[in-house]
Amino acid sequence: MLNVKDPSFLKDYSNEELESLAQDVRDFLISNLSVTGGHLGPNLGVVELTLVLHQLFDSPKDKFLFDVGHQAYVHKILTGRAGNFDQLRKYKGLCGFPKRSESEHDVWETGHSSTSLSGAMGMAVARDLKGEDSHVVPVIGDGALTGGMALEALNHIGHEQTDMVVILNDNEMSIAPNVGALHSMLGRMRTAGKYQKAKEDLEMLIRKIPAFGGRLAATAERVKDSMKYLLVSGMFFEEMGFTYLGPVDGHDLEDLKKNVNYAKKTKGPVIVHVITKKGKGYGPAENDAKGTWHGLGPYKIESGEVVKKPGPPSYSGVFASTLKKLATDDDRIVAITAAMPGGTGLDKFAQEFPKRTFDVGIAEQHATTMSAGLATQGMKPVFAVYSTFLQRGYDQLVHDVCRQNLNVVFAIDRAGLVGADGETHQGVFDISYLRHLPNMKILQPKDENEMQHMLYSAVQNDDGPMAVRYPRGNGYGVEMDEEFKQIPIGKWEVLQEGNDVTILAFGTMIPVAEEAVEKLAKLGVSARLVNARSLKPLDGEMLNQFASEHGPVITLEESALLGGFGSAVLEYLHENGFHHVHVERMGIPDRYIEHGSVPELLEEIGLTADELTNRVQKALPLKRQRA
Amino acid sequence: MLNVKDPSFLKDYSNEELESLAQDVRDFLISNLSVTGGHLGPNLGVVELTLVLHQLFDSPKDKFLFDVGHQAYVHKILTGRAGNFDQLRKYKGLCGFPKRSESEHDVWETGHSSTSLSGAMGMAVARDLKGEDSHVVPVIGDGALTGGMALEALNHIGHEQTDMVVILNDNEMSIAPNVGALHSMLGRMRTAGKYQKAKEDLEMLIRKIPAFGGRLAATAERVKDSMKYLLVSGMFFEEMGFTYLGPVDGHDLEDLKKNVNYAKKTKGPVIVHVITKKGKGYGPAENDAKGTWHGLGPYKIESGEVVKKPGPPSYSGVFASTLKKLATDDDRIVAITAAMPGGTGLDKFAQEFPKRTFDVGIAEQHATTMSAGLATQGMKPVFAVYSTFLQRGYDQLVHDVCRQNLNVVFAIDRAGLVGADGETHQGVFDISYLRHLPNMKILQPKDENEMQHMLYSAVQNDDGPMAVRYPRGNGYGVEMDEEFKQIPIGKWEVLQEGNDVTILAFGTMIPVAEEAVEKLAKLGVSARLVNARSLKPLDGEMLNQFASEHGPVITLEESALLGGFGSAVLEYLHENGFHHVHVERMGIPDRYIEHGSVPELLEEIGLTADELTNRVQKALPLKRQRA
Repeated sequence: MLNVKDPSFLKDYSNEELESLAQDVRDFLISNLSVTGGHLGPNLGVVELTLVLHQLFDSPKDKFLFDVGHQAYVHKILTGRAGNFDQLRKYKGLCGFPKRSESEHDVWETGHSSTSLSGAMGMAVARDLKGEDSHVVPVIGDGALTGGMALEALNHIGHEQTDMVVILNDNEMSIAPNVGALHSMLGRMRTAGKYQKAKEDLEMLIRKIPAFGGRLAATAERVKDSMKYLLVSGMFFEEMGFTYLGPVDGHDLEDLKKNVNYAKKTKGPVIVHVITKKGKGYGPAENDAKGTWHGLGPYKIESGEVVKKPGPPSYSGVFASTLKKLATDDDRIVAITAAMPGGTGLDKFAQEFPKRTFDVGIAEQHATTMSAGLATQGMKPVFAVYSTFLQRGYDQLVHDVCRQNLNVVFAIDRAGLVGADGETHQGVFDISYLRHLPNMKILQPKDENEMQHMLYSAVQNDDGPMAVRYPRGNGYGVEMDEEFKQIPIGKWEVLQEGNDVTILAFGTMIPVAEEAVEKLAKLGVSARLVNARSLKPLDGEMLNQFASEHGPVITLEESALLGGFGSAVLEYLHENGFHHVHVERMGIPDRYIEHGSVPELLEEIGLTADELTNRVQKALPLKRQRA
Repeated sequence: MLNVKDPSFLKDYSNEELESLAQDVRDFLISNLSVTGGHLGPNLGVVELTLVLHQLFDSPKDKFLFDVGHQAYVHKILTGRAGNFDQLRKYKGLCGFPKRSESEHDVWETGHSSTSLSGAMGMAVARDLKGEDSHVVPVIGDGALTGGMALEALNHIGHEQTDMVVILNDNEMSIAPNVGALHSMLGRMRTAGKYQKAKEDLEMLIRKIPAFGGRLAATAERVKDSMKYLLVSGMFFEEMGFTYLGPVDGHDLEDLKKNVNYAKKTKGPVIVHVITKKGKGYGPAENDAKGTWHGLGPYKIESGEVVKKPGPPSYSGVFASTLKKLATDDDRIVAITAAMPGGTGLDKFAQEFPKRTFDVGIAEQHATTMSAGLATQGMKPVFAVYSTFLQRGYDQLVHDVCRQNLNVVFAIDRAGLVGADGETHQGVFDISYLRHLPNMKILQPKDENEMQHMLYSAVQNDDGPMAVRYPRGNGYGVEMDEEFKQIPIGKWEVLQEGNDVTILAFGTMIPVAEEAVEKLAKLGVSARLVNARSLKPLDGEMLNQFASEHGPVITLEESALLGGFGSAVLEYLHENGFHHVHVERMGIPDRYIEHGSVPELLEEIGLTADELTNRVQKALPLKRQRA
């Protein structure tokens, strides 16, 4: 039934047919995602909007940019991919975001937010320079709009007056409820109701103002000129040089069509402010205050019960509960998140310390530098952020935090491969982008117990910025110590002694290495296994020792090989005169890693116990005498 | 006369005394900077403003954050540093930006723009949590305000309603004339004249509106509510949750004092919109359309003639003239700058290709991703950007450009040490932050002739993103070829053959290496010198050859050692079985490098021909037989 090839069939659809199709799409999404999981809430919210866009524009000649891309499922269905939804977000299956290699209708890939307006500006400028005739239509969420780069783009587009139809998909929440003044403003617009009507009334009112003499008349004139700024209207956007249309009911086909058609015909940049409801048409997802239905795993359709796998506590959970304990005794601790209170666990922290928790919106640059500001005043800011999103704060790390050598703690969640979210979300670059920053220290725990001690140690630290990175998902169910322990910075831990080879691993790679050590033992190879938990600084004392011995050194990291931990080991050894040591580096190769389960991905790139065993065996004959 | 210890003496100053002091400060700046050079224009513009701020607030209890920090000279004079101005921006001398180690009055360091609001928010939150009583006063330029992170911060501060006095120093230009819708808006505010007066008039007008019945009455009511949004006032800021005061004449002490005093007493965040004139009080700098007087070297006071040292063409100049030639034959080429048309040379390109030049304002994130958007449509975007400022686009490089493998050319200017601007501006991290990005290629020319060929080759390239990095300052005056040549990517050039040691150098380090090669020859050491112009990918063929020989390999880079070019060489050799090669890496150590002349800085960190000669001599006895 949804077995369509391309969206051209929509052109002649009546509103009744569209409504019926909308219902089918909803049923399809609710049913399919109950098995595969995925971003249900956002996509239920944009069914009518996506139908109307595909009816009124001509994709791929006209270009849709979905920001963020997890709201592109309906678009994927309408462009011939309904049949692939059983493999949604699975290894080699349908990507959860737009993907240029998947379809000519996916012209822009968006896993990180706030990029669509800049991408659209590039496309629109190209169109104009080439003298082509097409529409560029970014669909941006109200959350994504608070990201600094979206505001930079608004500013530039408004100035250039480039033709563009921006759809502002305002569903009142990004992932968690939005924060920020911009959001309040959108709120005011929303409640303004029939804006257009009020504007007309007001114009009439002004016409009736008696003509005062002198300055007052001039003022009245100015009032008329300022009409477009009046009320709780689209002033912000009009100020920025956009024509503002709305608010539009995003579930009312007629209202949508009227406004989108008007926007199509308008010169210059237009914003169509569309109000949608996340989870629309599926009760459990509509009444979702906590953001559970934003993106999730399998669920039971009837009850809306989310299928939960029991397991050990997650790293995020341990982070949050540890920070709560620490904050009880140390009122310098302040927690910061950039629109990820749930994902990072800070929502739990906020319950206990609401005044010491700041959700700054999708604004990692501001979050990083605000943390720096806090630290200048002796506070202990802890910025909990996904590895891939901290990329947005790189310059702020270089210029504000590390250069001023301030005591900011970065709790880097989702470090390493993240699985189903795929290449835009893999947390595999942070070691490479943090390691070369002067003053930065980087730690990663081997399990959730070490995690609590590391966070404790990081907060105690008075010697500049420190990052504690940890993976997505659960710990191992290890026993949690009652008392916090200081983890010495720059000190590793030998987990097992051995004579033939030294394996340096950390975090998630330790179980892999343990398995390999067992295999090697059976093959008669005695391997030393080291928990190399301090990625910067390295443990020079241990490295000196290992390098002075005979065996090769193997480094293992679930992180980019280029500029990563293994490279740090190479740098250290060569800088300290150990030029002869045979070092083998295992990690993530120089390409982007697509979606799939983490074990599948590790298998694909050879980060496995078997491969490690092979590499050790190959390295052994090469071992050389010490100098 | 300006020999003051701290700014407390200002408390009792009358306006007359302040005015006389303002004149003294101006004379001092004009006279001193004529010898040392420095940021004259911006500082002449903020003389009265800085005096008033120091009179009405109590630094360092109250905190000033100057954004960007090059407008802090007057602040430095008032806080006891007039005596150091003869060493302004010189090695071990007074820093050209605020510096925490210099004075307790410098609470925040700002070489990159748009960071002050976030830093201020951190400080203000710390103050409130600690229950302290002080003022936080960011002074932000209208250019800096267009940076995305400043807008992120405005959004958050407005939402939290944190007490803060933001001084918007609006001088109509950042470095070049500002662009963007936000700027037009500030322009409208500026021309609004006596805003406060007009507002009062309008309120009176509204009171006289007769009471209509029904809906019209309700509308009239809404008009009153919307008072604060009216006119061409501070609506944008008021929308964002700030109290807006202004526009204020930044050279009128009375007007400044009245508004700043009012702001001090106002709860919540306040913006004082101050209009200043860059270069105020010095003719040549006041009438400066091209931004010459923003920051410059020595000049003649009487004539305003800038002392120019004749020399070979600058790399920026060669970049611009080459791009002009290329664009004449290739209409896919589009040039982008983030508020640096003069510095990058794109102003010259724009004269010939105004429609193919985009100055997006201080918005490196948007510039990077807009380039990506252009590339999706088959255009050839060339983003000319300083190495240190491209740091702002790191996530956009990861997520938009490299991940989508788009043909964007990054012309990375000011790569390497920049000298007087110091640690916030040194372009020493780009190799480390670009090298680990999949699909990225990085080149650096050995001279201005190779530069033109590289830019040509980069624009021809159809295989994803490419960076051409080049230093600040002049080339060597080498002969420029008439015809462009393709520089093969991933291929190095042997400049001189030798048997004992291989030196891999690139860019500015080649003359240093040449000098060392001569010294070594005299010592009987035969060194091979390689122009390792392709930093990614490396020249595997050559490396295989060098590694198969006897001698050590020395890498030399004016760039961070961690994760840099030398590390790439180490990674390659170990990945390809050359574990035995003795590699010595010379480059920039793991710390921030302060201001000074480039030769002084190179001497300090040991990037000299003498040190290279020593390192080679030390490495030689260690050379080992090949496996």
